[in-house]
Formats: sequence, C-alpha cells, structure tokens
Amino acid sequence: MSQLVILTPEEQQVRLDRIRSIMADAGVDAMIISDNANTFYLTGRVFSGYIYIPAKGDPAYFVRRPVELSGSNVHYIRKPEEMAGYTTGGNITLGIELDVTPYSTVMRLKAIYPEADIVNASPIMRRARAVKTHCEQNLMRQSGLKHEHVYRMVPRLYKAGMTDLELQVEIERLSRLEGCLGQFRISGDTMEIYMGNLLVGDNADSPTPYDFAMGGAGLNPSLPVGANGTLIRPGNTVMVDMNGDYTGYMTDMTRTFRLGTIDPLAVKAHQLSIDICHRIEETAKPGTPAKDLYFIAEHMAEEAGLHKYFMGHRQKAGFIGHGLGIEINEMPVIAPRSKDILAEGNAMAIEPKFVIPGTGAVGIENTYLIMADRAECITNAPQELVSLD
Amino acid sequence: MSQLVILTPEEQQVRLDRIRSIMADAGVDAMIISDNANTFYLTGRVFSGYIYIPAKGDPAYFVRRPVELSGSNVHYIRKPEEMAGYTTGGNITLGIELDVTPYSTVMRLKAIYPEADIVNASPIMRRARAVKTHCEQNLMRQSGLKHEHVYRMVPRLYKAGMTDLELQVEIERLSRLEGCLGQFRISGDTMEIYMGNLLVGDNADSPTPYDFAMGGAGLNPSLPVGANGTLIRPGNTVMVDMNGDYTGYMTDMTRTFRLGTIDPLAVKAHQLSIDICHRIEETAKPGTPAKDLYFIAEHMAEEAGLHKYFMGHRQKAGFIGHGLGIEINEMPVIAPRSKDILAEGNAMAIEPKFVIPGTGAVGIENTYLIMADRAECITNAPQELVSLD
Repeated sequence: MSQLVILTPEEQQVRLDRIRSIMADAGVDAMIISDNANTFYLTGRVFSGYIYIPAKGDPAYFVRRPVELSGSNVHYIRKPEEMAGYTTGGNITLGIELDVTPYSTVMRLKAIYPEADIVNASPIMRRARAVKTHCEQNLMRQSGLKHEHVYRMVPRLYKAGMTDLELQVEIERLSRLEGCLGQFRISGDTMEIYMGNLLVGDNADSPTPYDFAMGGAGLNPSLPVGANGTLIRPGNTVMVDMNGDYTGYMTDMTRTFRLGTIDPLAVKAHQLSIDICHRIEETAKPGTPAKDLYFIAEHMAEEAGLHKYFMGHRQKAGFIGHGLGIEINEMPVIAPRSKDILAEGNAMAIEPKFVIPGTGAVGIENTYLIMADRAECITNAPQELVSLD
Repeated sequence: MSQLVILTPEEQQVRLDRIRSIMADAGVDAMIISDNANTFYLTGRVFSGYIYIPAKGDPAYFVRRPVELSGSNVHYIRKPEEMAGYTTGGNITLGIELDVTPYSTVMRLKAIYPEADIVNASPIMRRARAVKTHCEQNLMRQSGLKHEHVYRMVPRLYKAGMTDLELQVEIERLSRLEGCLGQFRISGDTMEIYMGNLLVGDNADSPTPYDFAMGGAGLNPSLPVGANGTLIRPGNTVMVDMNGDYTGYMTDMTRTFRLGTIDPLAVKAHQLSIDICHRIEETAKPGTPAKDLYFIAEHMAEEAGLHKYFMGHRQKAGFIGHGLGIEINEMPVIAPRSKDILAEGNAMAIEPKFVIPGTGAVGIENTYLIMADRAECITNAPQELVSLD
C-alpha cells in the first residue's frame, strides 16, 4: 500500500486554499475533478477516478485504478455512481471540468447529483494552477536545468548529412536518457505533437492544424506537424523546440542553430527575437497586462521591418507566449486580446519567432517565472545562432 | 494549395457508405465530426475544424487550420457558428461525438442547431472504423513489417548493465529512425503513455491508473506507467510492448526477452501465451463472439494452473485483446462481457500475458486482421523467449 496523496500536507493545503478562494468567489459549493493534470496538481500523482472537493472539509478520493492506494477519505469504486453515498448532493452548486470532460461523462456525473446546479470547474482550476507554488517553481527550475543541459549538447549530436528527423531523434534519445518523460501534455484533446518540434529550412513554413507558434509538415498526414525528413543543408536554420518535461512540470525552450552561412535577414531576425525576449524580461512583473507583452513584440517586429515574417509567414500564430507548467497551454495567454494580468508565481514561455523563406525559422523561446519584482529566466542555454559545423 | 481530402474518391466513398449505412439504421440525418482520429479516417489527414456529413449529398469541410487547403465544399471558418450558413439545421437528428468532445464544445455546437435532436455520433464512427477497408488493412500490414523489423533488432540493442529505460530509449530511437510516428493515439483523453512500455522484473507488477494489460511504476507520478529505471538482471524477463504506428495505423505487438536463466514457471507461462494466441488464431473468424476468445484464454490459463498470474498479478486487466487501427482502443473488445461479434475487416490485438513475481512479465501480443475465412497475423517477429546475452 502507498499513500494516495504524495504532496506534503502543507503543500496540498496551499493548493487547496487557492482553489477554495476561487470557488468562494464563484459561489461553488463543491467540485468533482478527474482530469489527469488537475489530479496531479491536487495529489502529486495521476490516478483514475475522481476527487470531490467540498468548499469546507477534507477532499474525498474515489479511485478506480491503481489498486493499493491508501489514506484518509480514499474510497475504491467501480462506477462513478458509487460516489453518491459519500458526498453531499442536494441543491448545491457543483463544479465539473466542462472544458475537458467529454459530454457523455458529464451527463453521467450530472445524473448522480440531479438537484445540483452544474457549473464549469475548468476555469477555476486553470486560475488556481496559473500561480505556481514555491514547490512547483522548483520543479520547473529542475526541468529547466535538464532542458538546458540537453540543448547545450545539440551541436555535438549533429553529424554531416543528417535530416531533421535524424537530428531530432538524437535529441529525443539524449533527453530521455536524462530523464525526460516525453509526454507532451496539452489541455484539451485536439492538439497532438510527439516530443516536440525540430524545423529545418522551408519546412518551418508548412502550415499545421494546430495553434502552435511554428509549423512543419510532419512525417504523415495523421500527425501533420514538425520534422518531415528534410536534409539539413548549408544556409538552413535548425529550430529546436523539444519537450522539457523532466518533473511533471514542463519548461518550454527554443534555440536555433545554423549550417554554414545564412541569409543576413535571418541573422537580423534572430537577434531581434533575443532583443524582444530581453525587453519582455525587463517589462514583465506582477501587474503587467499580458497583452502589453504581445504589443511590445509586435511593435519591435514592425519597427525592424520584419512583421511579414513574425510568428510565421504562410500561417501566423496569434500569440507570442503562453502560460505553462503541468500542461503546455496554461494561463496567462500572451496575445493581443488577452485579459490576463501577470501575477507573482505565473510561469510563461515567450517565443517571438520568425520564418524566413529559403532559410528557415529563427528566434528563441524562454520560460520565465514571474517573481515579486522581476521575471526569472529558467531556460538558460546560449541564445545566439550556434553553428552546427 | 493542396487538396484537403487525401483519400482517393473511391476510398472515401467506401468509408462514407459504411458510415451512412450505420447512420440510416440509427435514424441520424447528419453528423458533425471533429475528433482527430475520425477526421483522419474521413479525409486521410488531420486538420482543425469540422466535417459535416449529411445522410445524403456531399460532406462539407469547415477548416480553421491549416491555411491553404482546397477542394469542393471546403470553407474556412474562424468560429463553429459560421457553419450554420452552409448546413441544414431545423428539426433534424444530428450526431455529435459525445464520447470524446468536451461538454463545453458540445453545448456550443448544440446552440448552432437549436431545433436539432442531438444524438451520439461516437458509436457510429466506432462501428464504422471497426471494419477496416483494404486500404486500411494494407497500411496496418506496412506498420506490422516495420514493427517486426525493429523487434528483431532488440537483442542487438541490448548492452550489459542497461536499465529498462536505457533499452527502451534505444528501441524508441530505432523505431523513430524507421519512421515510427511515436504518438500513441488513445480514444478519450484519460489514458496517457509515451511511445509504449518496456517492463523488467517486478516493475511489471506495479499497478497503474490505466486499463492497460500491463503495469509499471514509470519515472514520475505524473506519468505512472512503464519503465522506472530498473536494472536488467540475470533471471529477469524484459517485456517489450512498443509503439507500432508507422502509417497513421498502429500495430500492437509484444515480445518477451530474458537475461540468463529464468524461473521455469515463467518459461511455462510464456509458452502458454504462445499457445493461447495460436488457439485464438485458429478460432477467430467472422461470426465468432469476441467473448469466446476471452474464455478460451482464461480457460487455458486455469487448466495450466497459471490463473493467478494471468493478465497481471497485483492488478489484473479485464480483457485479453482489443480492436485497433488509428487508435489503440477500437472495437471489438475481447473481454468476458463483450457483445462484439468478429466481422471480416476487424483488426484486433491479442495479448494473453502473465506476471511472474520475482521474474517479470511474460507472453506475447499479436495483431490480427480478420479475413473472410481466417485470422491473418501481421506482427511476425519471433515469438519465443529470446535471450539478450
């Protein structure tokens, strides 16, 4: 038998307090949580089942799998209907994760609490998770250190004549040997990517189905994103944007490499990306509107005459950054119409990128923690355009 | 510009005919499809948007991303509400994929067709996809050949002193270099695994949150499945159950390796797994009840006195096989209460496995296509317990 809740009691309390404060604002009496990311947040582990969080009192844990978990308020169930005997029903306001739970599952949960007023728990959990605790910040810093170590090795992994896929596979291998979990956790079930993205030359300009910052045709139309077998040639850039999940918490980092001499326009755009990140790093503090960071980046791209290539060329992304942690698409969103205001404890990735036709993608991406008085960069691999040869 | 529909017109027609026949039985006038697996099935590619399938007439394609797709009835939209202008609303019976689409998304789609009677499109698509076309069967055979090639190389990838993770990473690398897409596509968003499972020794007996046939503690409680860093020691078995998606269609194959001399009980159980697969291969034909295959396996395990170790030890799986294709959990389900009847064109993985405490997991898994008069095995790596040294 092992304890279901792996978090220390103090750490779990911090997270529960944050969630309950948002629940109270929203007038929510209880929530039923089952999404893997939220389950991990609340307990420190993923299990199959449900967590019932009342506004007051201890959470209850309803487990289908794995067997042999123990702890107070841990109940083994075969069907969600068995929760009814242990939880308060009646005329309450009950939160369910409506943005991520399939309709059929929600209807089944609703039927267990027929008198309850059902509201959406997804925004409550999203808001709570946007502010990382000290423990979470440290897990992100640990991922950042591993991530950085792998990126520093990229030039040594390259061998002349490699394709994008061949180089990506060597980075995947090293990442995994360093403990990378691989799984690219994205909220919602529509976006799919395997272990990250490595883009060479004009493949970076291939539009994808996903609202990722960069493209790539992929190897197969069933997973049309990323490397497509392009040979890395002199004059190409190689943009590396690979998975940084070493602790259950991801960092997101992009670095760009080059083979031979590349178009001066690409060199200029890459330097501008570094400059944009520096400017944003200086600006981002608790209280800064997220959309201001977008406009800083957009303005700098326009001033440099590089707007045409900014955040994509044939297809453009509508953001320059995003919150992240357990998942790659958390709050805050760094986009022109974002209403998010930076808060102490936010973690965000900033990725002002450019696609230069004939050369490839350039630019960098860093993950920052928003501290009381500054933004702390936790992805510290060299930023310059590093040569592969 | 490239054509949205990659399938040949003939191939798409076969699939549409099959879907429409099931729609007609269910009295469904139209369906809105957006799940990636179903989108790939209907067009040959994944895109972000919706496919509207009327009972009669041509499908309409509503695309958010990628840009630059063309074809008849292709409409670019920013919001799903824009579909209303192009599609028949009114008092119709409208199918939506209720088993996989988040509740919030379904409510938004419902609001576009306020007079429609909403029914579940998920079982319709599941039933249609359970019978593979000749084209799909060939894509599965192609995956099976690549998958087999990689498994034959496993003994050459092993080096003395490796951990489970180190060997898994070398298999991941070779698979990827051979064109494996990596992504492990599972219907529903609750089950997560990265690229497959390699289990050594007693880690095979660690219960997981998922209804997979085998366990493993994993590297981190955020992804608690599979390899956990166990050193491969003499007397251990190494069960390899890695991703076989090379074409958008997966094969599922398990092979077991050993280091040194292992417990005779494990040798016996491994041979029984091979025997069960042979017996099932001889039995499975169009018309065979799926549950009969389960009972054959269970009965053979009982007769051999190995029931205690069958399909897990501390935690048991409730099935011995599953349909597969675009996703790893399709119809038919090979379980004691399954109502599925095998049909020509089904693809199924059969995985009668055993966990022997102190040794590890043993057994094999094969993928079969159900042909008119027989089951065709498409995963033909050697089945015996191959030695790694």
